[in-house]
Amino acid sequence: MELKKPYLLFLGDAADQLAAKVAQGIKTWRPECCVGQYRLDGCNADVGLKDISIEEASAAGAKTLIIGVANRGGVISETWLSVLIEAIEAGMDIASGLHNKLTDIPELVACAEKHGRSLFDVRYPTQSYPVANGVKRSGKRLLTVGTDCSVGKMYTSLAIEKEMCDQGVDADFRATGQTGILITGGGVSVDCVVADFIAGAIEAIAPENKAEHWDVIEGQGSLFHASFAGVTMGLIHGSQPDALVLCHEPTREHMRGLPGYALPDIQTCIETNLQAARLTNPDVQCVGISVNTSALEEQEAMSYMDLLETEIGLPVVDPFRQGVSRIVEKLKEL
Amino acid sequence: MELKKPYLLFLGDAADQLAAKVAQGIKTWRPECCVGQYRLDGCNADVGLKDISIEEASAAGAKTLIIGVANRGGVISETWLSVLIEAIEAGMDIASGLHNKLTDIPELVACAEKHGRSLFDVRYPTQSYPVANGVKRSGKRLLTVGTDCSVGKMYTSLAIEKEMCDQGVDADFRATGQTGILITGGGVSVDCVVADFIAGAIEAIAPENKAEHWDVIEGQGSLFHASFAGVTMGLIHGSQPDALVLCHEPTREHMRGLPGYALPDIQTCIETNLQAARLTNPDVQCVGISVNTSALEEQEAMSYMDLLETEIGLPVVDPFRQGVSRIVEKLKEL
Repeated sequence: MELKKPYLLFLGDAADQLAAKVAQGIKTWRPECCVGQYRLDGCNADVGLKDISIEEASAAGAKTLIIGVANRGGVISETWLSVLIEAIEAGMDIASGLHNKLTDIPELVACAEKHGRSLFDVRYPTQSYPVANGVKRSGKRLLTVGTDCSVGKMYTSLAIEKEMCDQGVDADFRATGQTGILITGGGVSVDCVVADFIAGAIEAIAPENKAEHWDVIEGQGSLFHASFAGVTMGLIHGSQPDALVLCHEPTREHMRGLPGYALPDIQTCIETNLQAARLTNPDVQCVGISVNTSALEEQEAMSYMDLLETEIGLPVVDPFRQGVSRIVEKLKEL
Repeated sequence: MELKKPYLLFLGDAADQLAAKVAQGIKTWRPECCVGQYRLDGCNADVGLKDISIEEASAAGAKTLIIGVANRGGVISETWLSVLIEAIEAGMDIASGLHNKLTDIPELVACAEKHGRSLFDVRYPTQSYPVANGVKRSGKRLLTVGTDCSVGKMYTSLAIEKEMCDQGVDADFRATGQTGILITGGGVSVDCVVADFIAGAIEAIAPENKAEHWDVIEGQGSLFHASFAGVTMGLIHGSQPDALVLCHEPTREHMRGLPGYALPDIQTCIETNLQAARLTNPDVQCVGISVNTSALEEQEAMSYMDLLETEIGLPVVDPFRQGVSRIVEKLKEL
């Protein structure tokens, strides 16, 4: 699966800015791939692109309309349907990361067939992956891991890819979740793969490459999350990472969705992830910690990160406040 | 999903005894559930049951015909079809653990619909499982883990269930693979579940129970297997095991299917599994080691196990040669 670019970002009737975070992610990380945004009446989000019609988007060369908004229940709303059909008729594919599938809407399926266009439900893998073979691949790989779910692994990975490219390093972000796939146009939603093929799917999306090339692989879940650690484990093994970056959110009171489960100690978390990763790459190292300090004041955030850096002895950064250049510098020492 | 008993075991045209190992497993562990075996001309296997016709099986009360044979490629052969149809017409359901599905054969589907019977492809989960919640459940649980795949986890689990029941302990085997499901009539083929739901599926098949009740959960894969460790990790977390039993095959030269990957050291393997299991049950203990010594002479086997027992300090048994009573005794000390 590879989404065709450039994109028209569909914001629909987003209730607020947060509801359009998928569109925001695409705009932030791939502005060159966006011809504009399409908003319905009552839309309360704006990702800072030009508002354009389907006709204008088509004239500007848009190849795919991306549903960049999450509404309650992940449903594809009736009020969206006429826009999606207009886009298909204008020659665009449609891509969505929502729970409910485009391909379950007969009207859309019929329209896409008629016009020879494709519907991409990127949350659901459509191809089969092989069982992982564990054979060492050429090229280098960095994987983001986390103390918990939803602590900034995708953001950190994209920031590292950008910084590496800015510093002249040959690097590619590899998406493992639906938002990452929509941002970059490819990847696998690894938590939706059949369990036997978790590691194999990652081997497939981060294949052998030039010796100096880096894949920056988006992590999922946490080895310390009682619901999802299996996904994380397979992802670690399939990545054969040369480098890990640990992501963390310091104000979380318990593991996401699991009251009663405390977050792991940072040093223990690093050690446990390294131990798992050594199975397929004995030389793996942790090169830094990425902290999402958005819930802290600037001063508090800086003190927290200074203390952590002293304790752990690795670069500690907030990618949003400071960027990830110190982590990339550390990486170059490998 | 719950298969109806008793069973007629279909051995088909099994090339040799090994090809009928599913039928053999059912006969060994649930002889009281089998009314007989059905063999085609040229069948080279025999699980020691009476050879009976479909008509006789039906008269004896058979509710399900189990495909107890694996042929090359896991295909449901043309030559089997007339027998399966005769069984459906005689009132039986059909159950299979093969890769190719019964439900993909239009002739079988039509016949089952016409006669109100069911086709069970037990390798493929048909229900949705919830995301694991990690909440401590009442009742006790034992999980078998392994140094590698295919080292005797199912056999060991069934032997422990039987020994516990013989000793008056209230215990149930919980199947996590297709052969185990066919033997016991229920469970989940956990490596075929969508990755996000591995731990949740295990929480579902080993639900809360009486405080003194033991679930004996069949393990899958190994934390040290680069292809399948994600499945194992989720299985460990969902099981919330009070007790682990490590299974091992001492003559294996590398991890199954992975040349170049050595087997883990036994003590390291125990420690790593305990560490993973402590996330959802901090009190977990390893209570013994089950060794498949079928590739060793009696004397060699005994020496190997004696040495290992001295080194590790836990009961070491071959469940086939000696039974698992020493492991169950150790369990009672918990």
